[in-house]
Amino acid sequence: MDVSPNLNENDNQPLYIQLYEYFKKQIQVSGLSASTRLPSIRRLSDDLKISKTTVQMAYQQLLAEGYIESRERSGFYVIKLEEESFGSILPAQPLASFKTEVGGKQTRILYDFYMSNIDFNHFPFDSWRKCSNQCISRDHKDLLSYGDKQGERGLRYELSKYLRRARGVNCSEEQLVIGSGTQVVLQIICQLTGIDGKKVAMEDPGYPGVRNVFQHFRFEIEPIPLEEDGIHIDALSKSGAKMVYVTPSHQYPMGMVMPIAKRMKLLQWAEENGGLIIEDDYDGEFRYRGKPIPSLQGLDAHGNVVYVGTFSKSLLPGIRVSYMVLPERLLNIYKRMLFMYDQTASRFHQKALQGFIQSGEWERHIRRMRTIYQKKHTALLEAIKSIMKTNVTVTGQDAGLHIVLKVKSDKTADQLVKIAEEAGVKVYSTTPMWLKKDSAGDPLILLGFGGLSLEEISDGIERLNAAWTPYYRHR
Amino acid sequence: MDVSPNLNENDNQPLYIQLYEYFKKQIQVSGLSASTRLPSIRRLSDDLKISKTTVQMAYQQLLAEGYIESRERSGFYVIKLEEESFGSILPAQPLASFKTEVGGKQTRILYDFYMSNIDFNHFPFDSWRKCSNQCISRDHKDLLSYGDKQGERGLRYELSKYLRRARGVNCSEEQLVIGSGTQVVLQIICQLTGIDGKKVAMEDPGYPGVRNVFQHFRFEIEPIPLEEDGIHIDALSKSGAKMVYVTPSHQYPMGMVMPIAKRMKLLQWAEENGGLIIEDDYDGEFRYRGKPIPSLQGLDAHGNVVYVGTFSKSLLPGIRVSYMVLPERLLNIYKRMLFMYDQTASRFHQKALQGFIQSGEWERHIRRMRTIYQKKHTALLEAIKSIMKTNVTVTGQDAGLHIVLKVKSDKTADQLVKIAEEAGVKVYSTTPMWLKKDSAGDPLILLGFGGLSLEEISDGIERLNAAWTPYYRHR
Repeated sequence: MDVSPNLNENDNQPLYIQLYEYFKKQIQVSGLSASTRLPSIRRLSDDLKISKTTVQMAYQQLLAEGYIESRERSGFYVIKLEEESFGSILPAQPLASFKTEVGGKQTRILYDFYMSNIDFNHFPFDSWRKCSNQCISRDHKDLLSYGDKQGERGLRYELSKYLRRARGVNCSEEQLVIGSGTQVVLQIICQLTGIDGKKVAMEDPGYPGVRNVFQHFRFEIEPIPLEEDGIHIDALSKSGAKMVYVTPSHQYPMGMVMPIAKRMKLLQWAEENGGLIIEDDYDGEFRYRGKPIPSLQGLDAHGNVVYVGTFSKSLLPGIRVSYMVLPERLLNIYKRMLFMYDQTASRFHQKALQGFIQSGEWERHIRRMRTIYQKKHTALLEAIKSIMKTNVTVTGQDAGLHIVLKVKSDKTADQLVKIAEEAGVKVYSTTPMWLKKDSAGDPLILLGFGGLSLEEISDGIERLNAAWTPYYRHR
Repeated sequence: MDVSPNLNENDNQPLYIQLYEYFKKQIQVSGLSASTRLPSIRRLSDDLKISKTTVQMAYQQLLAEGYIESRERSGFYVIKLEEESFGSILPAQPLASFKTEVGGKQTRILYDFYMSNIDFNHFPFDSWRKCSNQCISRDHKDLLSYGDKQGERGLRYELSKYLRRARGVNCSEEQLVIGSGTQVVLQIICQLTGIDGKKVAMEDPGYPGVRNVFQHFRFEIEPIPLEEDGIHIDALSKSGAKMVYVTPSHQYPMGMVMPIAKRMKLLQWAEENGGLIIEDDYDGEFRYRGKPIPSLQGLDAHGNVVYVGTFSKSLLPGIRVSYMVLPERLLNIYKRMLFMYDQTASRFHQKALQGFIQSGEWERHIRRMRTIYQKKHTALLEAIKSIMKTNVTVTGQDAGLHIVLKVKSDKTADQLVKIAEEAGVKVYSTTPMWLKKDSAGDPLILLGFGGLSLEEISDGIERLNAAWTPYYRHR
């Protein structure tokens, strides 16, 4: 494919957007046929004399918008856009099922190992309803109006005490900011930091939900490879980025827990380079082996860490409540900007949460869930060990709500996912989480266990193994 | 003040950001003293040979971040930043009270005419609680997980039917997108349109909440003056902007209702210029005189309108639910981007709303509130007429939850606000809502009536009039 965009460094739009627009036009208007292979990132970068990051970001945007697809060990290909009929009635389904339908064939999924599913059979309906109802009464008419733009003070106070106890986070309620989801909270961070710097380093593979936010705010993503114990700090230093997003309690997706030595090194990098660390502790409450390691934020003496957390994994994704702890350097800017932005999280849920934490229900719930998830975690590891044996290697265990299987197979991760799906088992590829996929190496599959019962876990692994057996490598 | 920034057109950062950074440094580092007057926009634009918009945006950012203040008919002045002590306990107060405290003196406010306050004495607690509780039960465990990224389909369906009936909006649930607040919904619009164009026209004066969103996404705001019946369409055409944000049901803040002839002209502008209209119908349910005028979206035959609405004025700001109807040209882009963004509105509130609308409670509530607000509106107009007489002119009546007083006085709006406050009455200046304030003309004061009882309305006007009487002009 001959690629000759007219790139202009002095244009208003960044280079990667110009390149993206060029390809989009080629695909939409000039009718580049489906399955046309795009040049490799390295090749295009050399030919056009632009940085690989620029090409990568243009491809990422095309990927995100569905113009191209990435085929492992093969490259990027134009995909045929389906006719979208205006006003057609699509059945409402969460993302997981939607993917099934787009494939065309509807397979009945019996076991869904989705990473973001959590256990609902032990949800404390009665105490949650009680806390919620206390907010909807004539005695609390004030709750009907707009609340504190930063988030309800009472909740921030209870939360700051809990975070200190449970995660070693050192903050007052003044530093806490509430938002309706982690992406909202990350957007605020982008607005607080965007003017000063445009490069952000991310673990690769990393969490696409946050990567999308950075990209939409025109940050340049520096993908930093992982070592066995987490992000490669020398690579981070060399990248020149002054901001880094990490998931040290349970790397997303690979699952390793960042040990204390590396945490100290990372904090040192921040202090020596004027760096800012965004620590996303999304499922930090769930650790099954070893002592919990204190948050980076608590270990830091220099105010270089933004601590981000959420209730979506430990309590309820449906209420949409996440939070962050701002260090002084960002808190000042935030306070000045505060009046410009309405609070996005429901005031009712915030107050219910406040009561829930204050009454002790929250910590009882966490302890209960930790025990339940530990059982499921053990069941999953035992099932994998006894059923799949040495055909797979497990990583990312001992914390969080998912593990990663490295499968001894010549199939790609996407192929293994499809094979599993045809057998009624939904598992997940790590492919969308990479920016710079190392195409060598065995396929990596994510298995979440939060949303399955103990029986479903072992039955699911049984069925998965049966589906994959013909494809295991036997040398 | 000598201003000599080193502006570089080829820099990565837009000119206005460079200029903003220059001033910020002067203020923070070089210690420009408080009350130093900055050059006027016109003067600086001439001296530096840059556009007035560039200077205006730099000043706007400095204003927004609290580095400078705007003094009516005088210009921009550096302000002294208060020492912010880390971790100090600030009392939690909503924005209105916070402003009082910053002034230093705490006055007890007896009558608050805040525009965004609504009536809570007639809130249907029992039916709302019933709809909410139905969602928190073991029968609805599925509600505990993540929902549809676009917003709950059932709510979108009920809402699309209601909007058709009540506002003449023509859409299916496929086009509806839910978000946790109007700013969130506007952010999505920015992301859908941002790549293609950077200029957005706004009514001047206009709604700062939305202006802040546009500016943070680096849109260039073209302020378009108002005529008696709404936005000046010739000025809009001349501006070169391809996107405009309007509030035709009740212009924010001035209150005029856009008549049908102008609506047709605006739609014609959009069709002839490839323009996009964002119609914010924030309190469109409340009209007290004349027939309701159909939404711009319903009158448009060409898919050039995005219709935006919210439950914050008509039901409950605390639940944080707003929505928009995307035309086909944006819906396609949205559908491709959809998987990247989590839904921000609470699933519980969405489902409760769905039940609330489905059961007919919602429309009963709207009818009840319309009657109540009509009474308050009448009481306010009568009080003003009999008490303030010809010392004021009223505009923006007959719709919505606030009116505008033009006061015959040589005082500025900010001064009148302060005088009122000292008498225990909180009223609001339109000053923050202007980009290009016409410094001539009598002061304009906003009075919201949603949150006050009938007695409070007349007592408040009585007290307000007493405080202002010495300052009325008597020629």
